[in-house]
Formats: sequence, structure tokens, C-alpha cells
Amino acid sequence: MTSIPDKMTAVAISTPGGPQVLKPEQRDVPRPEAGEILIQVKAAGVNRPDVLQRKGAYPAPPGASDLPGLEVAGVVAAVGEGVTRWNVDDRVCALTPGGGYAEYAIVHGTNALPLPQGFTFSEAAALPETFFTVWHNVFERGGLKSGETLLVHGGTSGIGTTAIQLGKAFGARVIVTAGTPEKCEACEKLGADRAINYRTEDFVAVVKEVTGGKGANVILDMVGGDYVARNYSAASVEGRIVQIATMGGAVASADFSRLMLKRLVHTGSTLRPRPVEVKAGIAAGLEAQVWPLLATRRIAPVMDMIFPLREAWRAHERMEEGDHIGKIVLDVA
Amino acid sequence: MTSIPDKMTAVAISTPGGPQVLKPEQRDVPRPEAGEILIQVKAAGVNRPDVLQRKGAYPAPPGASDLPGLEVAGVVAAVGEGVTRWNVDDRVCALTPGGGYAEYAIVHGTNALPLPQGFTFSEAAALPETFFTVWHNVFERGGLKSGETLLVHGGTSGIGTTAIQLGKAFGARVIVTAGTPEKCEACEKLGADRAINYRTEDFVAVVKEVTGGKGANVILDMVGGDYVARNYSAASVEGRIVQIATMGGAVASADFSRLMLKRLVHTGSTLRPRPVEVKAGIAAGLEAQVWPLLATRRIAPVMDMIFPLREAWRAHERMEEGDHIGKIVLDVA
Repeated sequence: MTSIPDKMTAVAISTPGGPQVLKPEQRDVPRPEAGEILIQVKAAGVNRPDVLQRKGAYPAPPGASDLPGLEVAGVVAAVGEGVTRWNVDDRVCALTPGGGYAEYAIVHGTNALPLPQGFTFSEAAALPETFFTVWHNVFERGGLKSGETLLVHGGTSGIGTTAIQLGKAFGARVIVTAGTPEKCEACEKLGADRAINYRTEDFVAVVKEVTGGKGANVILDMVGGDYVARNYSAASVEGRIVQIATMGGAVASADFSRLMLKRLVHTGSTLRPRPVEVKAGIAAGLEAQVWPLLATRRIAPVMDMIFPLREAWRAHERMEEGDHIGKIVLDVA
Repeated sequence: MTSIPDKMTAVAISTPGGPQVLKPEQRDVPRPEAGEILIQVKAAGVNRPDVLQRKGAYPAPPGASDLPGLEVAGVVAAVGEGVTRWNVDDRVCALTPGGGYAEYAIVHGTNALPLPQGFTFSEAAALPETFFTVWHNVFERGGLKSGETLLVHGGTSGIGTTAIQLGKAFGARVIVTAGTPEKCEACEKLGADRAINYRTEDFVAVVKEVTGGKGANVILDMVGGDYVARNYSAASVEGRIVQIATMGGAVASADFSRLMLKRLVHTGSTLRPRPVEVKAGIAAGLEAQVWPLLATRRIAPVMDMIFPLREAWRAHERMEEGDHIGKIVLDVA
């Protein structure tokens, strides 16, 4: 190991605004408290909540770093009191409460996982946010079972590409929506049984057709808006609809007699404000059931582009243009 | 036992319309098939779905009697093949798939329960529909636990009075809404910790106040309409909202980011179309956990008025006027 410097380069939100407000700064290297580890960051994932935070719409929760960045991969540089699982020099990836756009980041020891065998740091940095989110919402909250049908909106997003692979790996039929023929093709290459171009097809009609009229058992939705009412139509009896964002509008109208008559479950969650104990539980499920599939590369993150840490603003620009397929990552090495 | 006649008096829906379309008719006495029992009806409960069915808005499911009536109490008059639990002359109450407004009714043997000790037939006929509904939706589907807060809309309905008593019996704090000071008083006499007059008070504000800002853990709602959005505000983090009707409108607008951020579960169900096996499961739960409380009269149905079977139209009139507190029952003896 190398000694830990006092100062590090980080990318901060200099003021709320467009991508250009993301600026490199010198910051103090944080110190791990009890239960925490300090990671020398090699790569950091970029996620949509980072964009919202940059715009001032999604402030960091109390106690979290003001720096953006919800996932990293790197090398353990120091361990706090009581941490027995990790040692200095261990290679890990982790869900961070913020602070990922930096050369060093603090996470709770239970929120880190070993770097999957054979993975680069960039690939591993692309895992935590989407894998924690999909595992919790599709499997734990939505209860997806083998043989069921999963509908995923936003098939080419980081969440979408992860949901396709995990859905297929656990025996579900996976239907996705995406906005161009190219994106649809990418989803089907990744294993989706059917990709719906939402600009030219009605997803409710296609889901009904593909499922022989039964509908989708689980729907993972980040759109909201008029998709809510349409999800109620596309869902099967006893279907579970899990809302993880409302990018198309939070306030919308729906037919709640349909929810009642089909005995739907409409729920949702956001990952960031959950306590470390909850995240530790999700991590344990992932390590037991999903990490072995990564080691054999049966599933792997879909990588879009990698930008240097200092050019995080370019990564945000790319995410906001919406042309990416899979994960955008910052190289911190 | 007396011998079973060929013909019986029943009250039928002569044509869709107002209460006066309910007319006595002579019908063949039905015969139990395998697994079924024939009940000589002594009393039949009146429920809001009967009113909807009378108006033509809620047709009987395939295979069910066209006669209204979803619950009865009486004496077993005959048992079908394979029924071992019941014998002729047993006193029972039961959930019927329809056909309750008659001197004889068929039910599946597993959907009958023994007459609770000391209960009149009229009291027992007032139990099945509301007790099956509340048990399934508040406890099985909503997962209400001791120490939690239950909010019930329509506190003086049959469902409401049952939910108050069951909620209190199982250790919950119960808050209800009702439309007059008299109805609020009746709810609090029945055990409700707080009755909210929805004409003069905002239930969201009161629920927040009573729960120290936390909100209700379970909400049983038969209103829908603009209550949906307000339920999302009144619910606690991880709150469960169970929709059992949408009397105030099925299509409504809500803020689904609130559902997501609070990790609410919005679900619902209707009892009538469920298969007999599901109803049998609910019956088993009720017999084990609720029937002992009825035997000691720790809980008892709230009786509004009893009308003769032939005057079922008066019972419907009373229900539609909305002044009733508790259950309306038909006397068939």
C-alpha cells in the first residue's frame, strides 16, 4: 500500500446548474469512522440521481458527502474500528452515500462487496447502484419468480440492462421498452425476449399479446406520468408494479378500480436514503446469488463510455443527451 | 329436520333499477353438488355490492345464482358428496357466491363457519361479508400489526364497524372517518381512538397530529377519488393502503413520487370473484383467531335494522340513504 495523502482531487458541484458546474477541487481525504472503510477510488459510476443532485433537485441526505457519486470500485486504503471483513489492499466495489467523484471515498464496510473475479475496476464501479436497485426492487420488493414475465421500462439504461440480465438469469421472460430500433436491438441482444419501441408501438397491447392476454407479473418503472395508468393495464392479476423514479411526471391519473379488481400491488422505493443495515442486507443477497454469475461472466455490466474524473461534466452531458446504452463511468486511476 | 320443499320464496332483481325492482318470486330449491351444502336460510345480510348488482353494475360471476345476497345464517338442510365437516341441522353462517335473498341457499362447505356461541341468526348473517373482507384486506393483505395505526374510511359502514373492532382487538390504534357528529360518536363508542368528521376536518392533518407526524401504517379505503392522493399523504413510511371500493370515483390523480419515497404499498381486492379455496383460507383464519372473540362478545356485529325478506327493497332504500350505522339484515325465518 501507499501512504494516504492529506489532500485529494474531487469533482464538486460548484453551484446548482448544467454539466459545467462540475468542477475539480482539492479536498481533505476523509477518515473512516467505526465500521467504515476508506477506498482509494479507481473508478466511479455515474447515475441519474447525480444529475438531479447537480441541478439542486436531490440534495445529499444529512451526514453524507456533498460530492456526487453513489458507487465506486477501488482498493481498501484504511479500515475503521471494528471492521473485520476487509483489509488494506482488498479490491472492492461499493455503494457510497455520496462522495464517489473523488480519489478517496468512505463507505460502510457492510456496503462493500469483493471485486468480482476477472472484473476491471471500471466494470465493477458500474455494478453497485443498478444491481442493488434491481435486486431490491425486482426480486425483494417485486417478488419476481422463475417463469413469470418482467416488464422493464427504459431497457437501455443502466437499470434496464441490469434488469434484463438478472431477469433472464433467474428464469423470467423479460419484455422491455426503448426509444429507437438500435436500442431495441441492443436489449434483445442482451437477452430480452421482446423489446418494444415505445415511439411506434403500444406497450400495453404488445405485453398482452406476448403473454397471451395475461399481462406482466412484475413491472419496473422509472417513468411514471401516463405510464402509471398504462402499467395498471399491462399488469397481470396480482401483478406488482415497482416505481423507482417518475421521470415522466410524479402526478398522474390512474384507474384505481383496475388496481383493486386485479389485486395489483403498486409500490416503489429509492435506495439512497435507506440505512446502511438495509443496504447490507441487499449486499448479502447479491453476494450469495448474483456475484457467482458475475464471476462466470454469465452476466456483466453493459458499458457505455468511460470519462476521466476531471471531465465528469462530459459524462453528465452524455447521460442527459439520452443516447447512452448501459453504464457511464469515471476513470479515477 | 323438516323435509326440503321443491319450491321456495326468493327475492330477485326483476329488472335493473331502483329498490322497487327487488320482487319476491317462487324459485326451485337448489341442490348441493359435491363439496357444497344447502342452508335453510334464517337471515341474510345486505351489502353494497347487492345494490350495485341491482342497478345492473355488478353482474353475478359465471356459475353463481342470479339472486342477490352474499351472506346468510341458517341451518344445514342437506350436504353434498364429500362434505364431512357439516351435518344436517348444524347451525352455520356462510359467505355465499350470490343467492342469499332466499329461503334456501347453496354454499361451498369450506365457506361456512359455525354460528358463534350465543349469536342470533340475524347477528350471524351480519358477519361473513364484512369479517372476510376486513380480515383479508386489513390483516392478510395489509399486514396490520399490534401497535400500528389503522385508518378506516367509512367508519360506520358494516366494513367500518368491523374494522374498528378487529383493529382494536388485535392491538392497533384505530382512526376512522365518518360524515356526522352522531356517526363519529358511534365509532368512538365502538372503540375507535379518534373519529374524524370529514365534513369539518381534514383527515390528513388529524392523522398526522394523532400519530405524532408518522401517519397511518394501514389504510382501508372504500372511497377512492381524491382520497387516493390524500391517503398517500396520510400514510406512514412503508404504509399499506388497501382499496376495497372506489365509491368516490375510480379514476383519480395522485403523486406517485410520494408512493415511491415513502415506499408505500397500494393494493386492493374484491372478495366475490375469488375461488372457494381462497375464501376457505380466509374462513380458517377467522375461525382460529376471530371466532373465539365473538364467543365472548369481546366483538360483535353492529346491527342497524332488520327487514323481512319480502321487503328487501326497504333494506336497499335504507342503505342508499346512507344513514345506517352497522349492518342491515333480512329476516327469512
